Amino acid sequence: MMKTVYTFGGDAPHDDPRQRDKTVTGGKGANLAEMASIGLPVPPGFTITTEESVGYLNRGEAFSDKLRDDVAEALAHIEKSVGKKFGDKADPLLVSVRSGARVSMPGMMDTVLNLGLNDETVEGLASASGDDRFAWDSYRRFIQMYSDVVLGLDHGAFEEALEIAKEDRGYFTDTEMTADDWRELVGQFKQIVKAEQGKPFPLDVNEQLWGAIAAVFESWDAERAKVYRRLNGIPGDWGTAVNVQAMVFGNMGETSATGVAFTRDPSTGERSYYGEWLVNAQGEDVVAGIRTPQYLTKARREAAGAELPSMEEAMPAAYEELARVFDLLENHYKDMQDIEFTVQEGVLWMLQTRSGKRTAKAALKMAVEMVDEGLIDEKTAILRVDPMALDQLLHPTLDPDAPRDELATGLPASPGAASGKIVLDADTAELWSNREEDVILVRVETSPEDIHGMHAARGILTARGGMTSHAAVVARGMGRPCVSGASAVSINMETRTLRIGSRELKEGDVLTLDGATGQIMAGRVSTIEPELAGDFGVLMEWADKHRRMGVRTNAETPEDCKTARGFGAEGIGLCRTEHMFFDAGRISAVRAMILADDEKGRRTALERLLPEQRSDFAEIFRTMHGLPCTIRLLDPPLHEFMPTRDEEFQELSDSLNVSMDHLKRRAGELHEFNPMLGHRGCRLGITFPEIYEMQARAIFEAACDVTAEGGDPVVPEVMIPLVATRKELQILRKLVIDTADQVFAERGASVEYLVGTMIELPRAALMAGEIAEEARFFSFGTNDLTQTALGVSRDDAGRFLSPYVEKGIYARDPFVSLDVDGVGQLVEIAVERGRATRGDIKLGICGEHGGDPESIAFCEKVGLDYVSASPYRVPIARLAAAQAALRSGE
Amino acid sequence: MMKTVYTFGGDAPHDDPRQRDKTVTGGKGANLAEMASIGLPVPPGFTITTEESVGYLNRGEAFSDKLRDDVAEALAHIEKSVGKKFGDKADPLLVSVRSGARVSMPGMMDTVLNLGLNDETVEGLASASGDDRFAWDSYRRFIQMYSDVVLGLDHGAFEEALEIAKEDRGYFTDTEMTADDWRELVGQFKQIVKAEQGKPFPLDVNEQLWGAIAAVFESWDAERAKVYRRLNGIPGDWGTAVNVQAMVFGNMGETSATGVAFTRDPSTGERSYYGEWLVNAQGEDVVAGIRTPQYLTKARREAAGAELPSMEEAMPAAYEELARVFDLLENHYKDMQDIEFTVQEGVLWMLQTRSGKRTAKAALKMAVEMVDEGLIDEKTAILRVDPMALDQLLHPTLDPDAPRDELATGLPASPGAASGKIVLDADTAELWSNREEDVILVRVETSPEDIHGMHAARGILTARGGMTSHAAVVARGMGRPCVSGASAVSINMETRTLRIGSRELKEGDVLTLDGATGQIMAGRVSTIEPELAGDFGVLMEWADKHRRMGVRTNAETPEDCKTARGFGAEGIGLCRTEHMFFDAGRISAVRAMILADDEKGRRTALERLLPEQRSDFAEIFRTMHGLPCTIRLLDPPLHEFMPTRDEEFQELSDSLNVSMDHLKRRAGELHEFNPMLGHRGCRLGITFPEIYEMQARAIFEAACDVTAEGGDPVVPEVMIPLVATRKELQILRKLVIDTADQVFAERGASVEYLVGTMIELPRAALMAGEIAEEARFFSFGTNDLTQTALGVSRDDAGRFLSPYVEKGIYARDPFVSLDVDGVGQLVEIAVERGRATRGDIKLGICGEHGGDPESIAFCEKVGLDYVSASPYRVPIARLAAAQAALRSGE
Repeated sequence: MMKTVYTFGGDAPHDDPRQRDKTVTGGKGANLAEMASIGLPVPPGFTITTEESVGYLNRGEAFSDKLRDDVAEALAHIEKSVGKKFGDKADPLLVSVRSGARVSMPGMMDTVLNLGLNDETVEGLASASGDDRFAWDSYRRFIQMYSDVVLGLDHGAFEEALEIAKEDRGYFTDTEMTADDWRELVGQFKQIVKAEQGKPFPLDVNEQLWGAIAAVFESWDAERAKVYRRLNGIPGDWGTAVNVQAMVFGNMGETSATGVAFTRDPSTGERSYYGEWLVNAQGEDVVAGIRTPQYLTKARREAAGAELPSMEEAMPAAYEELARVFDLLENHYKDMQDIEFTVQEGVLWMLQTRSGKRTAKAALKMAVEMVDEGLIDEKTAILRVDPMALDQLLHPTLDPDAPRDELATGLPASPGAASGKIVLDADTAELWSNREEDVILVRVETSPEDIHGMHAARGILTARGGMTSHAAVVARGMGRPCVSGASAVSINMETRTLRIGSRELKEGDVLTLDGATGQIMAGRVSTIEPELAGDFGVLMEWADKHRRMGVRTNAETPEDCKTARGFGAEGIGLCRTEHMFFDAGRISAVRAMILADDEKGRRTALERLLPEQRSDFAEIFRTMHGLPCTIRLLDPPLHEFMPTRDEEFQELSDSLNVSMDHLKRRAGELHEFNPMLGHRGCRLGITFPEIYEMQARAIFEAACDVTAEGGDPVVPEVMIPLVATRKELQILRKLVIDTADQVFAERGASVEYLVGTMIELPRAALMAGEIAEEARFFSFGTNDLTQTALGVSRDDAGRFLSPYVEKGIYARDPFVSLDVDGVGQLVEIAVERGRATRGDIKLGICGEHGGDPESIAFCEKVGLDYVSASPYRVPIARLAAAQAALRSGE
Repeated sequence: MMKTVYTFGGDAPHDDPRQRDKTVTGGKGANLAEMASIGLPVPPGFTITTEESVGYLNRGEAFSDKLRDDVAEALAHIEKSVGKKFGDKADPLLVSVRSGARVSMPGMMDTVLNLGLNDETVEGLASASGDDRFAWDSYRRFIQMYSDVVLGLDHGAFEEALEIAKEDRGYFTDTEMTADDWRELVGQFKQIVKAEQGKPFPLDVNEQLWGAIAAVFESWDAERAKVYRRLNGIPGDWGTAVNVQAMVFGNMGETSATGVAFTRDPSTGERSYYGEWLVNAQGEDVVAGIRTPQYLTKARREAAGAELPSMEEAMPAAYEELARVFDLLENHYKDMQDIEFTVQEGVLWMLQTRSGKRTAKAALKMAVEMVDEGLIDEKTAILRVDPMALDQLLHPTLDPDAPRDELATGLPASPGAASGKIVLDADTAELWSNREEDVILVRVETSPEDIHGMHAARGILTARGGMTSHAAVVARGMGRPCVSGASAVSINMETRTLRIGSRELKEGDVLTLDGATGQIMAGRVSTIEPELAGDFGVLMEWADKHRRMGVRTNAETPEDCKTARGFGAEGIGLCRTEHMFFDAGRISAVRAMILADDEKGRRTALERLLPEQRSDFAEIFRTMHGLPCTIRLLDPPLHEFMPTRDEEFQELSDSLNVSMDHLKRRAGELHEFNPMLGHRGCRLGITFPEIYEMQARAIFEAACDVTAEGGDPVVPEVMIPLVATRKELQILRKLVIDTADQVFAERGASVEYLVGTMIELPRAALMAGEIAEEARFFSFGTNDLTQTALGVSRDDAGRFLSPYVEKGIYARDPFVSLDVDGVGQLVEIAVERGRATRGDIKLGICGEHGGDPESIAFCEKVGLDYVSASPYRVPIARLAAAQAALRSGE
């Protein structure tokens, strides 16, 4: 039969591997056993397994008989170790009871200290410690804590009673309270309990203990804990362990103390001890903020100019012991530790250790330095840094010390901070930006027509749209900070003013956005530029050494290409040619093409576009120096290029010499009920082959030209979007090949190239075996694949996706992190069938998921050749790919 | 080595099964061999295999050496059988050369007669036949035909020359031409050939033969043949056979004749010989229309009051022989035969036999009667009738003899014919229809708001939209004739007039629609009511006996339910509750519900809807007498219920006492970019559970009420739409069960019920294993499954689906016939995984495909339990299901 309870400390054995297994004894219990096993001073205690909590809840809140026996036995171990008896009137053993799930989890019962006190044992504690005041203070603390945490009574009543007691006596601080004062208050506290719960405070110490254990077990099913689990994808059947441990007292006078510490600076990563402590106090006092905690080291105290002595100065012996323990723990755990300790009458006790949380910058520094120190190897260093945390490091951030005049908060849609003058449309943004002014583009929501304005702006603010709205996606791609869905913002285009919350602003007023938090502030707030320190470069180099997958970028401007190359992109995974169509100089030719009555008219307009596209591609090829470039032929439905505003219609009407009415009717005819599923992608190529022909020609002409300039030969990868059948690809591949042949014949030169397709429709994934006969590569367009497989329009999902994630229907936004269970199956099917047909088919991903670490791990698992991410996500992708490769080798 | 040539007739053996295999010798060749083998008089000949034609084309149009040898040998067989030599100057053997693919195929080379004639053999033919005129007539026919069919010259030049020759001589008919006239014309014909092709007409008989064989082979790759194959899904690698056969002459005087015949009446199905013949003529004369063909039987001639004698009267001996052959053939082939014959000097020769095409009515009658006659069994009878042909029989049709004033033609979107007054909106349709007027609803396109008007109308005409547009689908469901996409129609709502082509009409003018052809006619055209004769009932009964799958109907009104029951529906597979929401009496409550600010407001509005829904369901349950009813909870996005016109907004504003502005803003907020992928289906149930709760309550209250009335207990099947995850179904299933428990507790009564889901998203299909844990049944919503798997919006597909089908990208419109390769995979996966989880899960289909015979065959193959079709498709589904079951047993 499995053990229900594990003892630790004293002379307990620690050799059962289950005891150091977090799934059995929880994070805290496993670490306590681990510390005890390496000889650190841990107050003796025991851990009840997570399995028992699951059993308790499944049985309808009933303890097993075995547990009752085992707890009694384990309690005897503590009694024997510390030489005191639980409930002993002369010299009682007191214990703490703490929850401890596999991962730290808010909403769970936290801690009950001093358990085992009652009207009799308190006297024993007083006489044994020789400190009446300490005993009664401990007793009142116990009643207060137990009532709050175990009995679930309102803690306000107790605090009020304490306040009144102090007032009555003319005291300012708790420390003025005498033993008698506390004794009197204990009497009041007991009355409060009786009044509140209708029965007296439990004085039987065993009843106290089992009550606390039950409370921990039951807190697993508390509403807050459930919500947290749902949000963090923690299974409900893990359960929680319970840790019962002999009390040690940091509040036994001036030679006692309590504190929390990090073995390195969690904010900078510097290798220096970092922490806070309080003399003559219990753990809760450090965090409660009633007394100001003191610095741990002299150096820190002096740097801060603080008066109160550091522990290093006040308790040199205990501090030296603590420092020894720090080093021991770092060496043992090979990581920075977050520690709780208590000094009781000069003796150091360790209450907890765990890997410490840290900032991105600190994580990077620690990882690199620990390798230098020989503490960890490169692989471990790579796995230590959260790829998403890098995002903070790549963008400017607001100076945390600068004052902020906050107006409202929206969604943190794209990280970074920016200040600038408000502009209300894309043209103004471009105009003012050309005058060298910093601008913030504020729109209800953005559309492809706003791209030039978004590019010109330092930041983007929208009143509508979620984390995956057009504004958010494009801004992330450009590395522009963006706050989206700020519903407090309302815009009046006539007066060119806007209201944010209760404040009225006008175009030209200065605004600051924090894209990492969603904060919107009036005026300029100073920012701090990102420091891509040496550590970043070192870690990235290691990552590149250990990853298997290539990392490309989604980019279509030479600027974006340069940024991505700077971040280490190894090619372009997705160049969206339609973005080039929106350019002010070209849109009229695009519109003329759309409005043409026949193929001849379309060809005339396309001839105007050809040189433009050719120079776009040439510029990109030059920037990429022979790295592979996947260029997607025109994808969006044509109506996206049509004007929406009357002025634009008027302009177009003038320039094309066609009546407004005709234009509007034509625009109306292009309307689609579900454009996402409409006349777009390769369907355009099938119905208007001359468009794809022009694009293919521009690609091959540019490739020939740039190759002729010398340097690395260009190898374009021509990608046909939205393919659902082999036949579509067959027809369009032939068109591309024919065009290439023509261009090569005309130029008397040729380049290597590939023709492939996006896999972005469920049917394409299922038919990948056939489609691969026509495709040299597949690029998974997981945005559209998610939209179609789930039947969810990304643009419309805002209304239900949040409740969906809250209710746990989707663990995460499926447009942010790939739905591995559903969409993932389609990707796997396509990979398998594609490779079966064509063993050397190139496989990549170019959806937004290509920059998401969890999705990247999936790509590694199914064996893609590369991922492609927006420029600012390239470093994240590199690190995530390395981690995925290392983990898959585990 | 495989035989390249098979001989038939004479003393040729016919025992090689490959010779009677259409895939080897083509349809014509196989039948000729078959006829010869049962002793019928077939002129001797040979068939070149289809394989040789494939080889010829693959080799770049070159004959194999083996073929040359084998043809020479086979020619010797003919020579020996008829006792004449090919190219013999004294008494030459003449042959016909015909193509013969596996299926009859327009665009292929048809026939060359009299091959083997030249300037020398024509004299031999003349002396041997003793008929100069016959010989020269045959020669000029040969040159004319060979030049047209083999040499590809323009036949106009020959016809012109003949016309001039007759004019010059003052003749009116060809029969007036003498031997010398023909001889002179032959000279002119040869000059024409030389002028046109630059070289003389081939006089070498072997060159003639090989030229004709090559022409047949090459015609397989002719453009027209390719187009036909693409449209009919015939593979390009089948190839065609060539049949070379000794000529027999129906034009050797008054004891010779030629004709075509059916063994039964192909239009009524009556058991009486039916056909046409001509004395002293060759086959082409019968179809050319120069001479009026005569009736075959005396009875027919008399019935038609014709003068010219029937064959029965004119050639009683040959006729008797022919009748004997008819019976022999029917007995042999067990089917009505379509026959070509020639009588040469009193001797009957059979040139072709094949199963004859027939009308739906005839097919039905023949199938039933042949079973009575013991010719075929029930299973064969079931397989004989094309299920889609039944569609003609179930709807009124236009009197073929009534005059028609045709205005334009649109798409034949829903069969049947109707006349009525033009109305231009749904409300008017309802109003006038309530005044007992027949109306035709004419709209640019229809939307769910028009349902009541479509129901009130006798027929529907739309200017836009395809065969699967809203109008088409709903009209078919209701059994209303519909012509859609009639682009000649333009509507002016202000003047309430419409223009069709060049004609101006106004509301109230009478129009007639033929939904089977797409014709639109001015005024009233009289119609013929369908006769559901006894044959129909008999065949349906047989079908029911042999089918495995159940057949249900998609219906939501008691009227539709009654129609479907009349057609044999065994339950409701899909009752769309939203149709009930559009009812004029309810829409305001629906809108109030949508516009409510909170749950409380929504509940108040829903309380008004509850009794209405309850009575809807009660009425349906009563009509269905305990048959299973699958009721789908609310599916469409809420904005579909919002007003679109200003008057409606005004009305709503008045009734709800809310400003127009607010209403319009709210409607704007509900706008979605891709409503098909938006906030609809179970997403409504998750975000507004009170809606589904009301609907579930209405269902269970109605079920309890109707069950309490006595009769068969009601077993509702509650269907949750658009599920993508198990969790959605889990949450909503619990809501339905809780509501049921409440209702049962309140009523003190309960009913059996099932909760299940639609599988209409790719993710749902892939996750069917999990989802089945919560679902008692799956109903495949193949409309949406097609939209999402293919990424095609049905409403927008018009622009590219036709070119797609034309280019062979999709063999058929995937919304009409299930895309078995792609969408079919998802269905199969879901069936397999659903059954693995829950062995007894009920599986059905409720998409439009449930009424399509090919899709029904697929449903049988994957083992669904039932299909559900619109009421008028129920008989089609019954027959198709029976055929599928019989074929799967083959």
